[in-house]
Amino acid sequence: MADDVLLKPGERIDRLIDDRLKIIQNPQAFRFSADAVLLARFVTVKPGDTVCDLGTGTGVIPLLLSAQTKASRLYGLEIQTEMADMARRSVALNGLTKKISIDTGDLREALARYGSSRFDVVVSNPPYNSAGLGRLNASDAMTLARHEIMCTLEDVVAAASKITKSRGRTALVHKPHRLVDLLVLLRTYRLEPKRLQVVYARPGQKPGFVLVEAIKDGGAELEILNPLYIYDANGEYTAELRDIYFGEWE
Amino acid sequence: MADDVLLKPGERIDRLIDDRLKIIQNPQAFRFSADAVLLARFVTVKPGDTVCDLGTGTGVIPLLLSAQTKASRLYGLEIQTEMADMARRSVALNGLTKKISIDTGDLREALARYGSSRFDVVVSNPPYNSAGLGRLNASDAMTLARHEIMCTLEDVVAAASKITKSRGRTALVHKPHRLVDLLVLLRTYRLEPKRLQVVYARPGQKPGFVLVEAIKDGGAELEILNPLYIYDANGEYTAELRDIYFGEWE
Repeated sequence: MADDVLLKPGERIDRLIDDRLKIIQNPQAFRFSADAVLLARFVTVKPGDTVCDLGTGTGVIPLLLSAQTKASRLYGLEIQTEMADMARRSVALNGLTKKISIDTGDLREALARYGSSRFDVVVSNPPYNSAGLGRLNASDAMTLARHEIMCTLEDVVAAASKITKSRGRTALVHKPHRLVDLLVLLRTYRLEPKRLQVVYARPGQKPGFVLVEAIKDGGAELEILNPLYIYDANGEYTAELRDIYFGEWE
Repeated sequence: MADDVLLKPGERIDRLIDDRLKIIQNPQAFRFSADAVLLARFVTVKPGDTVCDLGTGTGVIPLLLSAQTKASRLYGLEIQTEMADMARRSVALNGLTKKISIDTGDLREALARYGSSRFDVVVSNPPYNSAGLGRLNASDAMTLARHEIMCTLEDVVAAASKITKSRGRTALVHKPHRLVDLLVLLRTYRLEPKRLQVVYARPGQKPGFVLVEAIKDGGAELEILNPLYIYDANGEYTAELRDIYFGEWE
């Protein structure tokens, strides 16, 4: 089957982890970015784990986790119909339809869809920006993926808590200025933050993201990891980043 | 007046910031450590500010802030009578009795002592360790300074909130594994975390401390600063640390 059979106008096929995976993207609409890849690398996935990605977008996180971990079954939930369709075609393109399910739906209804305490691991790379003052075009895929229009951060954390098993993990990536909101919400919803990493584009710059992993019903004890730098002082990828993008994770 | 008139058995006089300040310490009992100095450097003190240090110990924080900022008046509250007496003699030794007051008392009674919303800035370097299982010697000065025997972290945050002015600052240093507790308590007591810095002994090691500054009744928006390293890879003080220990702060 020729790859281009699966493509719709404006879409193209990009490669992940040294050509081992293909992913369909529409550069005019929305492409995954480094934060999703970093989250996929950050979260703890053990052999046999079931995983759900809330707001999966292009499906990049379940695709990466299917290749780089021994997760048994992965789900991606996406509210935008066209985006979910594209992610589903990416899954098919990689021959992973038996391992990854892309579901079209609202993460606020994740409990009804998946059932309580269903997953060992829940991840989410949610919209970072507030819904703002009504100047946004809510029909635009990129706008919906990046702004809290269809869901708030609390919606994401609440949904994650309901479908994560007790002692299971929830991991999120967000902007540094929201870290207090994120940690407070996680604890409020019985997801105790256990690992925190701050990601900097390069040394000396302001941080770009925070990665947090929580354990449902876990005890209060946070580990702060070493900061992660994407580029070194010379503008080259750091060794750690090259390992995340191109290396073996296990 | 000869300096040694002020000393009691076991005590000695140490120097701070290139000999500009003297501080009495008893090496057998308790000495200040880097975390207090880092907190004094971290907290934002504006010209004319009134400052209170909850659990001042040797008085090192008010001493440093009196020399390195333009604070108008500084208070240190200390529950251990002998420690407070030593801090008071250090203040006298530096000729600062009109600028710094050391009060003997329990920080849980700070509101009754100082009144509501009294200070522009409140700082604290509280005991880091839990009270444990009763194996501790509660008559030992070092034990009391380092364990949550006389007060819990919540006591410290509650006291700080009461005596900090609205829009004033509260800054604390604590261990990384308690960061979620610290941020949640601060927000609970209307002290919104605004600045966070993680301190590492050296690159690649686990973090040693977290520094957090909150604004009473402030809006939710955290700034995560660049990590602070005490030693470089060669075991030498970093330039930033040398500046904190020996440089001018303003």
